[in-house]
Amino acid sequence: MTNPKLRAFIPLFYLVWSDDLLTPKEFLTLREFISLQNWLSEKEKELLFAEVNVSAPPSRGQLIDWKSQIEKIIQEKPSVRSIFDISIRLSENDKAIADLGPAFIKLENDLGILDKEVIGVFKTSSNIITSNYQAAKRFDTEILARILDGKQAFIIKKVKAIISRPEFAYETSTDSDVYREKVYDWCKILAKENFGNMAYPKKYGGGGNLADYFSIMETLSYHDLSLVIKFGVQFGLWGMSIQSLGTEKHYIKYLKDIGSLKLPGCFAMTETNHGSNVKELETTATYNHDDQTFTIQTPNIDAQKEYIGNAAKHGQKATVFAKLIIDGNDYGINAFIVPLRDINGRVLKGIIIGDCGLKMGLNGVDNGTIRFEKVVIPKENMLDRFASINEKGEFESPIPSDNRRFFTMLGTLVGGRIGIPRSALAAAKSGLTIAIIYSDKRKQFGPEGGSEVSILNYRIHQRRLFPLLAKTYAIHFALQYLTNRFINKNESEMQEIEALAAGMKAYSTWSTRDTLQECREACGGKGYLSENRIDTLKNDTEIYTTFEGDNTVLMQLVAKNRLSEFRKSFGEMDAIGIINYVYENAKIAISEKNLIITRETDEEHLLDAQFHLNAFRYREKTTLASAGKRLKKLIDGGLEPYDAFNVVQHQMIDVSQAYLELIILEQFQTAVQSIKDKKCKDIVSKLCQLYALSEIEKNKGWYLEDGYMEGVKTKAIRKMVNQLCWDIRPDAVSLVEAFDIPKSCLAAPIALH
Amino acid sequence: MTNPKLRAFIPLFYLVWSDDLLTPKEFLTLREFISLQNWLSEKEKELLFAEVNVSAPPSRGQLIDWKSQIEKIIQEKPSVRSIFDISIRLSENDKAIADLGPAFIKLENDLGILDKEVIGVFKTSSNIITSNYQAAKRFDTEILARILDGKQAFIIKKVKAIISRPEFAYETSTDSDVYREKVYDWCKILAKENFGNMAYPKKYGGGGNLADYFSIMETLSYHDLSLVIKFGVQFGLWGMSIQSLGTEKHYIKYLKDIGSLKLPGCFAMTETNHGSNVKELETTATYNHDDQTFTIQTPNIDAQKEYIGNAAKHGQKATVFAKLIIDGNDYGINAFIVPLRDINGRVLKGIIIGDCGLKMGLNGVDNGTIRFEKVVIPKENMLDRFASINEKGEFESPIPSDNRRFFTMLGTLVGGRIGIPRSALAAAKSGLTIAIIYSDKRKQFGPEGGSEVSILNYRIHQRRLFPLLAKTYAIHFALQYLTNRFINKNESEMQEIEALAAGMKAYSTWSTRDTLQECREACGGKGYLSENRIDTLKNDTEIYTTFEGDNTVLMQLVAKNRLSEFRKSFGEMDAIGIINYVYENAKIAISEKNLIITRETDEEHLLDAQFHLNAFRYREKTTLASAGKRLKKLIDGGLEPYDAFNVVQHQMIDVSQAYLELIILEQFQTAVQSIKDKKCKDIVSKLCQLYALSEIEKNKGWYLEDGYMEGVKTKAIRKMVNQLCWDIRPDAVSLVEAFDIPKSCLAAPIALH
Repeated sequence: MTNPKLRAFIPLFYLVWSDDLLTPKEFLTLREFISLQNWLSEKEKELLFAEVNVSAPPSRGQLIDWKSQIEKIIQEKPSVRSIFDISIRLSENDKAIADLGPAFIKLENDLGILDKEVIGVFKTSSNIITSNYQAAKRFDTEILARILDGKQAFIIKKVKAIISRPEFAYETSTDSDVYREKVYDWCKILAKENFGNMAYPKKYGGGGNLADYFSIMETLSYHDLSLVIKFGVQFGLWGMSIQSLGTEKHYIKYLKDIGSLKLPGCFAMTETNHGSNVKELETTATYNHDDQTFTIQTPNIDAQKEYIGNAAKHGQKATVFAKLIIDGNDYGINAFIVPLRDINGRVLKGIIIGDCGLKMGLNGVDNGTIRFEKVVIPKENMLDRFASINEKGEFESPIPSDNRRFFTMLGTLVGGRIGIPRSALAAAKSGLTIAIIYSDKRKQFGPEGGSEVSILNYRIHQRRLFPLLAKTYAIHFALQYLTNRFINKNESEMQEIEALAAGMKAYSTWSTRDTLQECREACGGKGYLSENRIDTLKNDTEIYTTFEGDNTVLMQLVAKNRLSEFRKSFGEMDAIGIINYVYENAKIAISEKNLIITRETDEEHLLDAQFHLNAFRYREKTTLASAGKRLKKLIDGGLEPYDAFNVVQHQMIDVSQAYLELIILEQFQTAVQSIKDKKCKDIVSKLCQLYALSEIEKNKGWYLEDGYMEGVKTKAIRKMVNQLCWDIRPDAVSLVEAFDIPKSCLAAPIALH
Repeated sequence: MTNPKLRAFIPLFYLVWSDDLLTPKEFLTLREFISLQNWLSEKEKELLFAEVNVSAPPSRGQLIDWKSQIEKIIQEKPSVRSIFDISIRLSENDKAIADLGPAFIKLENDLGILDKEVIGVFKTSSNIITSNYQAAKRFDTEILARILDGKQAFIIKKVKAIISRPEFAYETSTDSDVYREKVYDWCKILAKENFGNMAYPKKYGGGGNLADYFSIMETLSYHDLSLVIKFGVQFGLWGMSIQSLGTEKHYIKYLKDIGSLKLPGCFAMTETNHGSNVKELETTATYNHDDQTFTIQTPNIDAQKEYIGNAAKHGQKATVFAKLIIDGNDYGINAFIVPLRDINGRVLKGIIIGDCGLKMGLNGVDNGTIRFEKVVIPKENMLDRFASINEKGEFESPIPSDNRRFFTMLGTLVGGRIGIPRSALAAAKSGLTIAIIYSDKRKQFGPEGGSEVSILNYRIHQRRLFPLLAKTYAIHFALQYLTNRFINKNESEMQEIEALAAGMKAYSTWSTRDTLQECREACGGKGYLSENRIDTLKNDTEIYTTFEGDNTVLMQLVAKNRLSEFRKSFGEMDAIGIINYVYENAKIAISEKNLIITRETDEEHLLDAQFHLNAFRYREKTTLASAGKRLKKLIDGGLEPYDAFNVVQHQMIDVSQAYLELIILEQFQTAVQSIKDKKCKDIVSKLCQLYALSEIEKNKGWYLEDGYMEGVKTKAIRKMVNQLCWDIRPDAVSLVEAFDIPKSCLAAPIALH
């Protein structure tokens, strides 16, 4: 095409032939356009038609030639910003072309070409922000690591040193037997280091340090999670059941051997037919007056103990929860020490052990089933802190109600609901470390002609990982708080702390589930290879949402506790009255500022900690009052209370969620305030803002429904979440490095620099 | 307590001692109340104080006695509905007690006791709805099964018969080598049944039936998913690459042996450094003019082929995607047949095979890495449907643009994006079948004194499973539609169908991920045991969200396609104009009916198919217009297009989501309309309503932000979702039975009646 005015069509020709989104229909559109140009001679039109004939495409060389002509123009005049500009210059500023402006734009629109977008195909800009963004060292990761470790820094360091030793190299065999023995051996090493007995009283050979015990559980979780669970079964569940439910004689007899792992044991509560509703366990312990013994019996196959850790292979004794029967009367669930195996590991008479077999994860733990066939144990084997049988063979207890006694017993075991969420937290940290380091290195796609871009520069990738990173930091501080509350508890706080532990267990383990899922997907195919460890992290923690209390059941429990507290604290008014009070009061507080607050979108306000706290508090109060109100209305309307609770189950989850999120935000904000290092404080503060805003965003439907916010504000919040993600990106790698997970534990090839 | 008026306090005494939510503080409250009762003598007060002394609890027998006194009253007068009523009767209608009404209620409130709730502790009602609800046979599952199978019923039945044979018993070894060989053997059996070559042209020994091929893929997915993927790699990826990218000479030479599995092969596209951005693959195929051969070369370790199925063990040849180089010039990505092993399985010279090792799932598939060291192949091994080298050694192609040619090649391979979501669908059906049958049988908790309740009667459990059941049905019909469109496609529809397949692949595999996650949790500990198969279903399908195109990348692609279509269809106006047009037009359409529609909450409206369709359409239109508008604004504001696309990535996901949901709803509604059996139509129609409303509920934040609905309506929708779940409960088991999954495939002990 030597005719300059015809050359004006080159950019369009190039585009229709090269753009893979244009269909044959678009060629017709272009042909039509050409035929309408009266300033072209018929011959000129024929020349042009020849270039857009679907059955006679240009040669590959022709296409390259067109492209180079266009690129030449752009090189000569880099300020060119539209296809039409190029056309004019290609036509050597032909008057007819210059007049064509509006028609040209219309044609482009008809072809679905966005002018300024397409221009990127021809000019490689060095100003592409997405390409140039990268990780930076903007704070000292060691300082942040020290802040995270807090007072337990010493024990954490010690645990890390031990699990980094060569003998803690991961087991790669897919043979469960091999894996189970390896895990058992690891536990023995840890027992030797006095990790196992850390929480037992010094008087009985323990370390007397509960805070350190929890930090051990959490830190071990950077390593193998079967190890952590086996460790927790032995020293936590089995040992703590003796410590919490037994008395002096049991402590003296057992605690030392449990702590040293000389006496491996089980915590045998769950039965096949009763997992959540343990009040209805069916195993019986019948008292025999003649020889002051109990007979332990499994009445039917579905009453066998199931999923019991240490049962299939190593356990020699078990704390068995069973209904106490005296003279045919049922005295509710009590706990008994029952021998399972002799010291050589031979299963004793009357004990029938099954193996749970292969599981989704945690295959280094020997979970099994246990059945009891007339197993006789001496009276002293009853764990008798809360109930006992006197010399006359009569039942005695300081707690008259069987239910209340059982729940008091369960309450003493709440430590497990602190250990598990902390272990889950560590697993989430491992997953995020692997995914974020990999995403920083991994490059894919890029601007036309430019180099490929770190996938962590993609907004959507940031969106997938950073709110979860913020949430993980949030949960870290909240679990520190929970642990402190638990360690320093007094009697009157017990119910609050039990509910908080139940709730945090659910919240943390669900968060870990979501986090590891996103991490797996964010790592693509690499995330699927076992060598990169997201596999085991995910599958091992999968059951965390079920054991130590099914999360959904726990959330109902937390909500019931909240409702009960709520009723008590407003006892002075009648029920409807107080509910209206809270509800309306909150509404008024809002509506006073309605026009400003519900629509306020300036950056300062959106990032304001007080705004976040208010929003979380409002939601906590309102969901609670609203569930209480609804429940009352249903019951007043004649529904049986049991049915009424069923109807509001969905709302109850909201109540618990809102409560937990409020506690977590409060603790996160408090933690931020206590940070002294300016740079660390800045970045952790950003994470706190991101946590707050992404939770608000997640619940925006609720805030909008309620009228607490208007659409203009929730939209602004979404943008702010995006912005915070973008701002955090350079720090993301440092933020996971501050978790300070031993390289040998992380192990994933994709996470090693 | 023989004094009747003192007996009025029995219910309160019983409650404070038995309720495990009451704390010592509440005992004080009760003591205070007693001390304020002037009608009591000091001595009487002392008697009462003695019963609420925390340091001297009543005996267990005392508690039982109190309870039986209360129960006696209730038996005598079942209409009693409050604690105070009981107190009056216990006091033998003492006047002083009767006057105490308001004070008593206040005390109860102070104690956090909700009267009507507590009364349930004493009387066992037979009217508890939650207890009495159960599964029912309300439609013919066989009729529904036939509707689901449609025209492919014959082949589906045949496949089911074969995978139910004894030789298809699941492999239980954890040794990958054993598993891989078993899967290979299974594939050979299927090849003998002419399943593998089902899609190849009859002319080349195939079955010429693409519809049957997809049904085979889906039905096989009730069995082992490693088998499905190995099957898909061999007959789909490897075979179809020959069929789609090769020409006659290749068909004649290879298709028969591929279809019979005599020639196992690979589809070698992905490289370590390039998974999503395959346009930048680095493997080279350099043309040698002298002997008319190509040299295949892996230029660096990160350019090795990775995750390639059939590579580690069985593949003898591979379709290798590589950059074609002629005389130093790059002609873009093309496909070549490269031999890997001889017929005895010995790896050939220049081929370096690695094993991907253990994966999260699909360990029956031998994924591996392949490197090429100067591997020379004859010219005829180039798959030359879209590009070839002529006798003069020059490149020739009917598609001049290298990019466009490559995407055309990829487009012919879109079948994989139909097979995978259909396989994912089957896995979701398996998971739901297991979880729903188990949840129907599993009982846990129940009203005081009543028997335990099927967990499927709990509202929250219904909420967890039924919207996913509805979604699975929805996806079933949408994938049938996609398959039909694909089979009957013409040239001009290709882009639409490619985008739809990409989107449905992402939508279906994400839905399966969510479904199986919920199923695992809904089955509690049982869901964690490998024997119940949710383990393998979940882990095998985990990579479905990544392979055949990373879901997040695919969603961006779908949105870009939608934007491009959008621009074309509104070509007549200028860009801003049209966007405003669509946007405002939609707004007006709403605002006209604003006061009615946005607040309309009656049942008929909420369940109306037209309302659902309007809401989905509105969202589809608006998200698209809004993303287009934002993008234009950003670019007009001076942002580089590449950066602008990055900024809107989050919105782009919305665009795709809304588009896919609209298509799915349309197809679901069409399917419902075509059902003739009244009872089946009724229940499927309910599922369709549940799908529509739960998606609206999920997006309620968006609808509220936009003003399309008000809070009163979204709240009503939430209730309606709950109601639909409740209504569907009796049919839930029948609805999964209609999937008609062979018992031997389901295999989970918890799912067998």
